[in-house]
Amino acid sequence: MAHQEILKLRTARRGTVEITREIAAVVSRANLQSGLVNVFVRHTSCSVIITENADPSVRRDLETLARRWAPDGDAEYVHDMEGDDDMAAHARAVLTASSLSVPIADSEMLLGTWQGIFLWEHRTHAHTREIVVTVTG
Amino acid sequence: MAHQEILKLRTARRGTVEITREIAAVVSRANLQSGLVNVFVRHTSCSVIITENADPSVRRDLETLARRWAPDGDAEYVHDMEGDDDMAAHARAVLTASSLSVPIADSEMLLGTWQGIFLWEHRTHAHTREIVVTVTG
Amino acid sequence: MAHQEILKLRTARRGTVEITREIAAVVSRANLQSGLVNVFVRHTSCSVIITENADPSVRRDLETLARRWAPDGDAEYVHDMEGDDDMAAHARAVLTASSLSVPIADSEMLLGTWQGIFLWEHRTHAHTREIVVTVTG
Repeated sequence: MAHQEILKLRTARRGTVEITREIAAVVSRANLQSGLVNVFVRHTSCSVIITENADPSVRRDLETLARRWAPDGDAEYVHDMEGDDDMAAHARAVLTASSLSVPIADSEMLLGTWQGIFLWEHRTHAHTREIVVTVTG
Repeated sequence: MAHQEILKLRTARRGTVEITREIAAVVSRANLQSGLVNVFVRHTSCSVIITENADPSVRRDLETLARRWAPDGDAEYVHDMEGDDDMAAHARAVLTASSLSVPIADSEMLLGTWQGIFLWEHRTHAHTREIVVTVTG
Repeated sequence: MAHQEILKLRTARRGTVEITREIAAVVSRANLQSGLVNVFVRHTSCSVIITENADPSVRRDLETLARRWAPDGDAEYVHDMEGDDDMAAHARAVLTASSLSVPIADSEMLLGTWQGIFLWEHRTHAHTREIVVTVTG
């Protein structure tokens, strides 16, 4: 049987929010010698990524590129009911991912020195997001 | 020991096919209180994604964008033995992924209201695709 | 308890290095009837992918496309302390992924005929990379 917790998080706007500490706390409570933690968002317009946690300009540049990968309000989009950021947000979520996994040893994640876990809000406005954290071993 | 099943699916053409119900059936048969299901395609020119399952225009717009991310028959491609969609299909598979994982509680996937699981066929013609579904907990 | 090993690998330059055999050896040592293997890189400027292992031109074309997805030395980048390939490497790592999972049956990975596992070095110079391999079932 896995250890599972659901976290709720309020995002302020489009952009990344570091959640490494929150995930580490769940992993610690699972008290597992070795295994994996899976972080899953229950939404189609935000995602989870691992990237550098030292210099915030990395995430600023990721935003710059994401706007090219999936432009807001593109003339070719058919799906635009909820505004210019609607379809772009779905595409950005598909290009990154709904979930990620990190290995665990002695109740700690084996992240590299510069790796942080981030929730990436792809909508321009604030949203409440549910994150399912599952520890298996 | 994990619960594992291999599904076979015939795709008709490039595009997405919802497989949420098929995966849910495997998860139900695994009869697990909590854990994860992993969905893996044994191919390099199709992939699995989670995206909105309400409005089909989302997946139409994903096709539009995918054609920009990896154009068919690009002049710079070296790998073009099997036609214009060959290399584009490999690139689209790498940009999305060969597998995804979804958390399970009480023998049901914890998908959000609007999340569906889709097999994304990236070749223009019909193919038979094998999907390995593995439930661990 | 999961079976876990950390591999070290020296990359020569930007590009893909096949690691299927190394991962298969870990899976074999885990001696598991059914489950999953997770392959995780402890870095934010390289990634792991599954793609065709027959024709090397596929990976050459992936490089061509990756240069478009995240151009080296783009004028809009703010993060450029470590050179033109710095931010591009972070973006390429986010677009692909820090980890992947493959199902296991009878101590062997259920890879398709043409699927290989590759470490993708995104920096232009040589680096030592740590890969955590975790087998759960």
